[in-house]
Amino acid sequence: MANSNTKVVITAALTGAVHTPSLSPYLPWKHQDLIAQGVAAYKAGAAMIHIHGRNQQDGRPSALLEDFRIVMEGIKREAPDVIMIPTTGGSLTMTTAERANVVAKLKPEMASFTPGSMNFNFSGLAAKPRQWKYDWEQEHCAGSEDRVFYNTFKVIREYGEIFTAANTRPEYEIFDIGMLNNLATAIKMGQLSKEIQLQYVLGTLGGMPADPESIYILLSESKRLLGNDFTWSVSSAGKQQMAMMATTMTFGGNVRVGLEDALYLEKGVLAKSNAELVEKVVRIAKEIGKEIATPAEAREIIGLKGIENVAF
Amino acid sequence: MANSNTKVVITAALTGAVHTPSLSPYLPWKHQDLIAQGVAAYKAGAAMIHIHGRNQQDGRPSALLEDFRIVMEGIKREAPDVIMIPTTGGSLTMTTAERANVVAKLKPEMASFTPGSMNFNFSGLAAKPRQWKYDWEQEHCAGSEDRVFYNTFKVIREYGEIFTAANTRPEYEIFDIGMLNNLATAIKMGQLSKEIQLQYVLGTLGGMPADPESIYILLSESKRLLGNDFTWSVSSAGKQQMAMMATTMTFGGNVRVGLEDALYLEKGVLAKSNAELVEKVVRIAKEIGKEIATPAEAREIIGLKGIENVAF
Amino acid sequence: MANSNTKVVITAALTGAVHTPSLSPYLPWKHQDLIAQGVAAYKAGAAMIHIHGRNQQDGRPSALLEDFRIVMEGIKREAPDVIMIPTTGGSLTMTTAERANVVAKLKPEMASFTPGSMNFNFSGLAAKPRQWKYDWEQEHCAGSEDRVFYNTFKVIREYGEIFTAANTRPEYEIFDIGMLNNLATAIKMGQLSKEIQLQYVLGTLGGMPADPESIYILLSESKRLLGNDFTWSVSSAGKQQMAMMATTMTFGGNVRVGLEDALYLEKGVLAKSNAELVEKVVRIAKEIGKEIATPAEAREIIGLKGIENVAF
Amino acid sequence: MANSNTKVVITAALTGAVHTPSLSPYLPWKHQDLIAQGVAAYKAGAAMIHIHGRNQQDGRPSALLEDFRIVMEGIKREAPDVIMIPTTGGSLTMTTAERANVVAKLKPEMASFTPGSMNFNFSGLAAKPRQWKYDWEQEHCAGSEDRVFYNTFKVIREYGEIFTAANTRPEYEIFDIGMLNNLATAIKMGQLSKEIQLQYVLGTLGGMPADPESIYILLSESKRLLGNDFTWSVSSAGKQQMAMMATTMTFGGNVRVGLEDALYLEKGVLAKSNAELVEKVVRIAKEIGKEIATPAEAREIIGLKGIENVAF
Repeated sequence: MANSNTKVVITAALTGAVHTPSLSPYLPWKHQDLIAQGVAAYKAGAAMIHIHGRNQQDGRPSALLEDFRIVMEGIKREAPDVIMIPTTGGSLTMTTAERANVVAKLKPEMASFTPGSMNFNFSGLAAKPRQWKYDWEQEHCAGSEDRVFYNTFKVIREYGEIFTAANTRPEYEIFDIGMLNNLATAIKMGQLSKEIQLQYVLGTLGGMPADPESIYILLSESKRLLGNDFTWSVSSAGKQQMAMMATTMTFGGNVRVGLEDALYLEKGVLAKSNAELVEKVVRIAKEIGKEIATPAEAREIIGLKGIENVAF
Repeated sequence: MANSNTKVVITAALTGAVHTPSLSPYLPWKHQDLIAQGVAAYKAGAAMIHIHGRNQQDGRPSALLEDFRIVMEGIKREAPDVIMIPTTGGSLTMTTAERANVVAKLKPEMASFTPGSMNFNFSGLAAKPRQWKYDWEQEHCAGSEDRVFYNTFKVIREYGEIFTAANTRPEYEIFDIGMLNNLATAIKMGQLSKEIQLQYVLGTLGGMPADPESIYILLSESKRLLGNDFTWSVSSAGKQQMAMMATTMTFGGNVRVGLEDALYLEKGVLAKSNAELVEKVVRIAKEIGKEIATPAEAREIIGLKGIENVAF
Repeated sequence: MANSNTKVVITAALTGAVHTPSLSPYLPWKHQDLIAQGVAAYKAGAAMIHIHGRNQQDGRPSALLEDFRIVMEGIKREAPDVIMIPTTGGSLTMTTAERANVVAKLKPEMASFTPGSMNFNFSGLAAKPRQWKYDWEQEHCAGSEDRVFYNTFKVIREYGEIFTAANTRPEYEIFDIGMLNNLATAIKMGQLSKEIQLQYVLGTLGGMPADPESIYILLSESKRLLGNDFTWSVSSAGKQQMAMMATTMTFGGNVRVGLEDALYLEKGVLAKSNAELVEKVVRIAKEIGKEIATPAEAREIIGLKGIENVAF
Repeated sequence: MANSNTKVVITAALTGAVHTPSLSPYLPWKHQDLIAQGVAAYKAGAAMIHIHGRNQQDGRPSALLEDFRIVMEGIKREAPDVIMIPTTGGSLTMTTAERANVVAKLKPEMASFTPGSMNFNFSGLAAKPRQWKYDWEQEHCAGSEDRVFYNTFKVIREYGEIFTAANTRPEYEIFDIGMLNNLATAIKMGQLSKEIQLQYVLGTLGGMPADPESIYILLSESKRLLGNDFTWSVSSAGKQQMAMMATTMTFGGNVRVGLEDALYLEKGVLAKSNAELVEKVVRIAKEIGKEIATPAEAREIIGLKGIENVAF
């Protein structure tokens, strides 16, 4: 399998689209905070930064191109060789073209691409009484009880075209076994390329749980359904984040940490930045005998087109 | 685990909501054909019949209560002790109450209940040129490229209430690992009862593939996430149906066959009835040393309330 | 993996070294019976015959070259293209050269080769009171409580040389995961060739149990530790033999049946010959949609040197 | 499963019977060094100490009762509540009674017990030219190419009697799947008690490899074959020791570290003591959010009889 025995590639997922400003004062959503935290995460050891846009008035998730562009250009100024991976998650009311606009316009080296649909429920965040800073937050959380993350085969096919046109590598976000089978099917039909980077996203209610068993199963099924030529990483929501990252590295995988996935550094202690989480996973990597990949090494491991070929 | 080493319970899934009349002249959709095939399947060894409604003009899937009631009462007349399991799949445009109406009104012993959302793509059926008898068929198949089988946590919660009110046992249709985790979560939150019958539904594009590895994984994860107190069965779409049923019985599981899952008896030979598929799985069971459960034995294995407590 | 989706290769294991004459009147041990049953098994569909020698006075296991040669030449006369696989199991008191003498002298296309040591306990056969025909039988069974099947790394290395010199393909009998790792290690050290045929031997007390879970685990670990270039088969001792064979074929594997592995055709009914067991597995194969390989097809699937290159 | 979500129990395996004095100047074998390192490991966080005897002239493995008693009494003086687990591995030329003498005489709370036979090859340690201090060392290593770790079912049965008579809990050292099945069989036959503590010993050439996949498989098969009432720990030979310990804790298991399993603290750096390895695993535990069990907590988790009931 492609990325065993190589250096570990760290991705920092800065903010995501789940957590809201009231859950942590350290969650970045203003452009300058996203830029500053991205740059600090890079300096701490992250070769890749996963980017979500946020509305600048109230922090709600934003799919506006400008909310990506400003952050990505800002990070690039201070961390010119870091790899940036914008999301294409979008929302139920958007067209495929709108969701993937950031790929078409900014032509990043890699962008997220989820090959399947599932429930996406984080209503538990609204279960306890809480002081909400913004009016959208509570409904954003509570309403996810009725939310589906919508990526039909038609969307998969259309994304394939947009990513190919932009020469952007998909980072397939795999939440469950069916998505591996969807991916294998779409590749067999010629809709997607055979260059495969997988991000196993664990711990979302709707997908596979954030347990080490999930890594075993996903890795084994990926090889069975996709063959051995792929690279892979794990992100793990919730309190087991660091234990899961240690386990992922032992299995030979790359890791993703960040405030998108977990707000806490340890039990009862909020992480003060994405960099703090990156520093922690770097310490663990060293304790268990793993080395950290630079962005240049990450590009070679995954096989990316290079920062000189993006449009931002 | 509950149903190892017991007799094998056979379910016949008569017609489903995927296959269309033009795909096989033997697919039953008229009331009298559904009744006749259900009764014949029972006589061949099926202890349980899985029921979908069909429109009587053109065979399209129907969620009308009458299309269930007539079939279920018709089968009951000639097979008074068979267990009937209506679907609650419904469609995207229906409310939860409409989808689960058959449960609320007919109070069956068991009904299907899918605890999660996923793509549900059978557009491959429309890939080859074909003579279509009815105008809805081609779009029904081709359009599934953009279809999501929609069962959010809100739907799961509401179904839980409806099933409990009707004293109907859910047969959880499990298409992927995430659904097991959804189920475990909803049970922990007290939304669903702890009496668990699982139907692993394999081979739908969007869920897990129809391979024996899927059985291993689902069984292992079910025990891990739900504990050991559950009964389980497998249905397997496509040409491996009978091989998968033999494997399921070896793992200690119950089986589901029928024209909903596979139209062919063997390569190139259409099955002429659901009974023919039941007869075949009975032959295989005997060859590999398994005995077949009667409806009474199936009720005891699964723990159902009994035919005297239904409202049809 | 090499042998998925190809025709199924059936091996008949005629007599083994575990069962004794008193356990079944149909267990062949006289030369003419072994020959007759081998030929009949071939005619029933077996492409390969697994051979053990037996003493002609009292049926006890024999490692005498003549007890192999007479049987193998006898079968060859009437079934000239069948593939014969003698054992090299031997016993604790024999040297490696004595155990592998049949390979050195008869240069068969393939011979068994067990890459590891383990307990080998079938004392349960002596647990019930029983009329024993021969004086060695009871102690043979009861004494196995203290028996180790002895195949150290030194034996593995020496076997490697003998098999290579004879141009005989090893059929690695895999009783447990450690043996796969032993094999991978010996291959990496250059002691064994990279052409790999695995026989997963399940149901021996000391090795992995005869459950479908064992097939999943062995197949998955074989790919992980040995890569994807191997062919494989399963033998399964005891009453689940036929259910396990159906499952093996579903996983894409080849099958071994025979009186070495199970004396019963079904519960309470002794198999009257090896051919009867082959006929049964052929029936099951057809029911689940699998075709049977001829000896010529088996040679191509596994990659054997051909009957013209043996020395018997 | 018994020990998920509890505090992590750390065992220090001081010296074992594989490594020889020339491999590391820090490997303890003199009584006073074994005592000093045992006490220091306890102070660093080990609740349990795994003890092997060593000859006081040249450091070779010793099964003499005095070589256990002196060390165990010495450690007890300074660490009165630590749990000591002597080995019963012995050697091929010893009787069962000799091998288990330490149990019969010292009646420890727990002692190792290996329920199965396997190759035990560490001849790789003699592969490179090396200055050997003692004449026995090279042959000890090189000769293991032909070594079997000998534990037949007769030995298992006899050990069962000796352990029961001493009221000593077995710590079953599990090197492979077959040993789990052996254990399940011996328990079913009433030869062993149902209180089960498992030590998965990974990375010995002959058993399962030191990979995270092995943990998944062993844990899953333990539950399947033994039920859910057991406690478990992992030891992992070689350079992945610390990565494997992090993974074990993530799976919910207890850990064993020490110079028996790995001589290096990190790549190219010999560990200067067992305590150094314990300190490292304690650091990792804290980084990934796990707490360390005291000896008292370990006794409760595993269910041991207490230090007041031993005979040393």
